[in-house]
Amino acid sequence: MPVFNVNLGERSYPVNVGAGALDDLGKLALGAGLEASRCAIITDTNIAPRYLDRALSSLRKAGFDAATIELAPGEETKSLATIAALYEGMTEARLDRRSAVFALGGGVIGDVAGFAAATFMRGVPLVHVPTSVVAQVDSSLGGKTGVNLRSAKNLIGAFYQPRLVVADVATLASLPEREFREGLAEVIKYGAIIDAAMLSDLKRDMPAILARETRILESVVERSLRLKASVVERDERESGLRAILNFGHTVGHALEAASGYGNYRHGEAVAIGMMAASRLSCRYAGLRIDQAERLANLIRSAGLPTAIPEGWRGEQFIGALKLDKKRAHGAVEFVLISQLGHALSRQLSIDEILAGLG
Amino acid sequence: MPVFNVNLGERSYPVNVGAGALDDLGKLALGAGLEASRCAIITDTNIAPRYLDRALSSLRKAGFDAATIELAPGEETKSLATIAALYEGMTEARLDRRSAVFALGGGVIGDVAGFAAATFMRGVPLVHVPTSVVAQVDSSLGGKTGVNLRSAKNLIGAFYQPRLVVADVATLASLPEREFREGLAEVIKYGAIIDAAMLSDLKRDMPAILARETRILESVVERSLRLKASVVERDERESGLRAILNFGHTVGHALEAASGYGNYRHGEAVAIGMMAASRLSCRYAGLRIDQAERLANLIRSAGLPTAIPEGWRGEQFIGALKLDKKRAHGAVEFVLISQLGHALSRQLSIDEILAGLG
Repeated sequence: MPVFNVNLGERSYPVNVGAGALDDLGKLALGAGLEASRCAIITDTNIAPRYLDRALSSLRKAGFDAATIELAPGEETKSLATIAALYEGMTEARLDRRSAVFALGGGVIGDVAGFAAATFMRGVPLVHVPTSVVAQVDSSLGGKTGVNLRSAKNLIGAFYQPRLVVADVATLASLPEREFREGLAEVIKYGAIIDAAMLSDLKRDMPAILARETRILESVVERSLRLKASVVERDERESGLRAILNFGHTVGHALEAASGYGNYRHGEAVAIGMMAASRLSCRYAGLRIDQAERLANLIRSAGLPTAIPEGWRGEQFIGALKLDKKRAHGAVEFVLISQLGHALSRQLSIDEILAGLG
Repeated sequence: MPVFNVNLGERSYPVNVGAGALDDLGKLALGAGLEASRCAIITDTNIAPRYLDRALSSLRKAGFDAATIELAPGEETKSLATIAALYEGMTEARLDRRSAVFALGGGVIGDVAGFAAATFMRGVPLVHVPTSVVAQVDSSLGGKTGVNLRSAKNLIGAFYQPRLVVADVATLASLPEREFREGLAEVIKYGAIIDAAMLSDLKRDMPAILARETRILESVVERSLRLKASVVERDERESGLRAILNFGHTVGHALEAASGYGNYRHGEAVAIGMMAASRLSCRYAGLRIDQAERLANLIRSAGLPTAIPEGWRGEQFIGALKLDKKRAHGAVEFVLISQLGHALSRQLSIDEILAGLG
């Protein structure tokens, strides 16, 4: 099974990628130095029927005594109310300072379980067991945790690195088609910003990826996480470089906000956001049009949307961009690419963004 | 003005102690590398009428644009509901990632403002401006932040170091007598666990301390914070040594819990807790009785209670000890002293504790 380390000094941790890894969860947790003791699995009611028993059984075999907490699935779960409920659940489950929290699920579960683990008793060990593509290739690595406030996504949170990541690509087999495909947006993103060769490989392998062939999924997930790790290792707390991981996310988030976090799945919004960012890259960063088209074709081949929808220039969309601007101290810090595989960050005014998007 | 650094690598920060330091707040913040921009002062409605204008004026002169958020005073404010309200207030105040949060007040304000700063946008700069003795000699340094859950004190929180501490000892002059005296428990604690010479000095200086002479308060606050810094620098996240700072706190917390966090002020409970801990130290750690009596006399001379109250063996008290035990994985990790100035940690059973307390 492919395994590598995220190197962050005393906060380093191993990442395991492999079909069937879920059944080794307990053993891997012991290997990562966690204590076989009281612990909790946090998951959602979609994931629990599929994978909870296997996770529990693997942990039990390794000597862990796991409580389980099941949350409702969906973005609405990323709230302070959920965090308060998790604290109560973790207290009832009699967790102590050494008790690990296992986040079994997609991005939302990772975000809320991670934030709860970061803040319960000032931090208990956290293990990410991602089961969606987005979580396996992106959100399970790097330590971002948090919840939404009414006014903005991910406004509340903490940087809190897990002690272990276990990505069982076999869990991707049962994902609904749309959910599977949205995750590929983040994979394509890594190619666009730091690994042009990956884009060629993805083009070649797209049929096998969409057929969810185990071997190719292992390779795609591992490569994605290694690329992300290489960025996070150089800028853990996003004081600079790490911002390039937001390629496609500025417009993507604005689209999500404008449609009330509902019409687009996150990866779909990021796909459209990457299209917008590459259009801006042609205008403001010298990206060649044929390269932008290569990227567009790859996004299309993954079955992801590429067209900015009608009516996107609405108040909500521009309001979301403005919020981004406020958060970044007066200017939107926009991630562009000068060529495929080379990202840079540039301050753009709202007018420049709107003009560039045409 | 005495100033020294807490050395924690990239999380190091300066500590300023001095009468009148509040009027230099803006200048000190710039000196600590904070950006003169939008920021927020979080305080309570007791403190605001006394010190808010001076803090605002100092920040304004240095170019800061400060919003203010006033909370109700008291331990009830240390709740998740307060944190949610702070998030809303910080959003309305249009804070961004570089906006500093100034915690102006006692321990409760430092704890909640610190936790909100730690988790707003995954962490914004934090400045502690403590105005109580407990906050000036203890809680403003070391990075502990958090709130209470219904079931237990400080169950939720984060380690989050400030970027600057500004302790204006002149603010201690207006404290009610009981609130002033309770803070001396934490001062005496440092002597008991790591600096026996300090106990002699405190004995000699107690009249001047109780008369709140500026020069002596500066010296006591600085010495206390330097001692705390020396411990925190060696064990930032309380994986070992730092636990000695809990001397007197195990029984102290149990007393507070048993009386519903109301009858005793924190420092008073710690004073009684230190008496209990020194009694256990005579029995289990070889502390000489005359040394225990020296400590008792000093606590008494500060006007602090020393007698464990009638009925203390109640269910709530023992329940609180048991919760402590659960949190520490099956045994109460008790801080004892083998002689004045020398602390050690020992696992004691509930029975041993009750027997030792007689």
